[in-house]
Amino acid sequence: MLEQPGTMKNIAILGSTGSIGRNSLEVLKQYPEKFRVLSLAAYSNARLLLRQIEEFHPAVAVLIDENAAGRIRSSVPAGTTLLAGQDALVDAVSHDDVDVVISAFVGFAGLQPTITAIKSGKDIALANKEILVVAGEIVTQLAREHDVRLMPVDSEHSAILQCLTGEARKAVRRLILTASGGPFVGKSREELAHVTIKDALNHPNWSMGNKITIDSATLMNKGLEIIEAHWLFDIPPADIDVVVHPQSIIHSMVEFVDGSVKAQLGVPDMKLPILYALTWPERFTSSFPRLDFSMPRDLTFREPDLETFRCLSLAREALEQGGTVPAALNAANEIAVEAFLSGTITFLDIPELIGECMQQHQNHQQPGIEDIFAADEESRQVAQQLIERNRRVTMTV
Amino acid sequence: MLEQPGTMKNIAILGSTGSIGRNSLEVLKQYPEKFRVLSLAAYSNARLLLRQIEEFHPAVAVLIDENAAGRIRSSVPAGTTLLAGQDALVDAVSHDDVDVVISAFVGFAGLQPTITAIKSGKDIALANKEILVVAGEIVTQLAREHDVRLMPVDSEHSAILQCLTGEARKAVRRLILTASGGPFVGKSREELAHVTIKDALNHPNWSMGNKITIDSATLMNKGLEIIEAHWLFDIPPADIDVVVHPQSIIHSMVEFVDGSVKAQLGVPDMKLPILYALTWPERFTSSFPRLDFSMPRDLTFREPDLETFRCLSLAREALEQGGTVPAALNAANEIAVEAFLSGTITFLDIPELIGECMQQHQNHQQPGIEDIFAADEESRQVAQQLIERNRRVTMTV
Repeated sequence: MLEQPGTMKNIAILGSTGSIGRNSLEVLKQYPEKFRVLSLAAYSNARLLLRQIEEFHPAVAVLIDENAAGRIRSSVPAGTTLLAGQDALVDAVSHDDVDVVISAFVGFAGLQPTITAIKSGKDIALANKEILVVAGEIVTQLAREHDVRLMPVDSEHSAILQCLTGEARKAVRRLILTASGGPFVGKSREELAHVTIKDALNHPNWSMGNKITIDSATLMNKGLEIIEAHWLFDIPPADIDVVVHPQSIIHSMVEFVDGSVKAQLGVPDMKLPILYALTWPERFTSSFPRLDFSMPRDLTFREPDLETFRCLSLAREALEQGGTVPAALNAANEIAVEAFLSGTITFLDIPELIGECMQQHQNHQQPGIEDIFAADEESRQVAQQLIERNRRVTMTV
Repeated sequence: MLEQPGTMKNIAILGSTGSIGRNSLEVLKQYPEKFRVLSLAAYSNARLLLRQIEEFHPAVAVLIDENAAGRIRSSVPAGTTLLAGQDALVDAVSHDDVDVVISAFVGFAGLQPTITAIKSGKDIALANKEILVVAGEIVTQLAREHDVRLMPVDSEHSAILQCLTGEARKAVRRLILTASGGPFVGKSREELAHVTIKDALNHPNWSMGNKITIDSATLMNKGLEIIEAHWLFDIPPADIDVVVHPQSIIHSMVEFVDGSVKAQLGVPDMKLPILYALTWPERFTSSFPRLDFSMPRDLTFREPDLETFRCLSLAREALEQGGTVPAALNAANEIAVEAFLSGTITFLDIPELIGECMQQHQNHQQPGIEDIFAADEESRQVAQQLIERNRRVTMTV
């Protein structure tokens, strides 16, 4: 078949200096006739952003941190407009020529620019799961209104999308998200009491950013993915199961009403789901590493330990309660992970803290976007206060 | 969605008293508003056929063995016409009201009635892989001409069809057929020298007929499946790989050009692929046993041992040579399996005998159906002669 002319896609990347952003650029680089990098946005990593500008010549580049922008302003080559500050993200995503926005900022901060992108009618390759966690109903509704595609970049959701291809919605019985279980799979609560930051950051299969690596270790990541899957695929929470699969080869599965199960497999590498999000429903030939069955291979499965890894149940609870509870859960989790990474709380404090924030949260059903922001803000404050109080108690004792 | 009226399908079963036939009736029984049994055909198992007639009230029933038919003629209830003899199969498959023919006779004998069914414009649920092995080009060409669907019932090919659903042909990189490896997986040639018939019939996962169970033990079954997959999915032989997966949970896989792999999983039970062949592209809700991930589960993979299990290479060679060679291979295999089951030759004689028949065969490229029948007949004679000579030599020694 002849290629259609004009199939070049212009891409904006929110979070180009992070793990997903860097992987995305690796992918785009391999298809210079299919993708053009139109805009890049990062928080503060000016040095890396400058190198990316030099390599990819985007029309627009944004640094949220204005001081960081000042440091490279004089070095930015002609042809790229460097902008600074949160508001400049609007220019990065709503530029007339942008076709797809890869939304890869970490955490809640990705919400506002992604909403702007959707309102500008841009398709979204969604790497930031927190957006659907905190505002799934609002964001999916907006996407429908603006006829925008929300394509998952998470490997699990990409796997599910691939398994659902060509299948009717009514044929789906349940989704089965696989979880590597992180570095602590099989460990007891006692063993987890004294794990270090370094232990928690040592993920067996995936090389990712710090936030998501800790979320993997607590299984909160899988909890957030249940919420994300619910919104992306319109499947009731009770029909989304989790199974621990430490090798991260099967990225997720779908069971159908007849009892058949389909799975998507691949080496643990984000480049494949990134590419699929950009090419769906097509597939492009890639030179990514392939699964090799010529060596003996062993894939194992077991049920998650919900007693030890409480975050999974907390996320499910938040989804069931709905309203602003998922936003409160997510905010508390972001603060808890930060506090763990800075050595302020222990690994087992993370679910304690989140559970306490959820209890204190006043749920707001059918929230508007401003309610989501308020819930996020409030839950962060509660979490900070709890950490502060806890520290004082510890110091007193 | 409202069900369309007139979606009842009338089914003919060739081989209703065999393993696939009995499983098919189990499936049909569960959907009395979707499927009606219109005709049943069997070789000679009159007692079981009579019970099936009494339960399913087909319009037509056929026994190929005329003596067997005579034994039940007086017991057949009004409403069912009992016919006898090979020629009566035409009535079973080309009856005006038949929509789908489940082709489940064992071996080469299924070819002629299946061709008749295709020429009558009936969709085929194909459980008999030998049909495509011996006459793949002719049968797929006929199916295209008569606008007939060839739906695989083999669990491997059903898995591949499910993985291909919604995907473009050009997106496919390769098919990966999984093989349980049968009861002798991991064994050396020395260990196989003295295996008994009972050992070979003791398949670890699947309960099937004797012919296919021995084919599983020699890996000829997987060789025949490579040929079948080539014709069903129009994939070059070099792009069809085999991996040994002793648990028979992943029924087969497809690798795509981007490096992604899709797999279909299920408990080893033929009812699911039978149902899928009848409902595709839809899926019906079933009460078949489900895969359960709540217990620890271990799926292993390794390369097949082509030195020990020579039949796999022989089948590949036959496919590459094309013409009438696959028919010669299949005929020799049918004779060899019979001879093994009757205790006339040993397990390791099976590939020897087939290899010798292939060597003696004069290939006929672009064969007509009569050339296929001639090659089949000739190869059976050669195989019989070789067995006879071998026996005389053994007796002399």
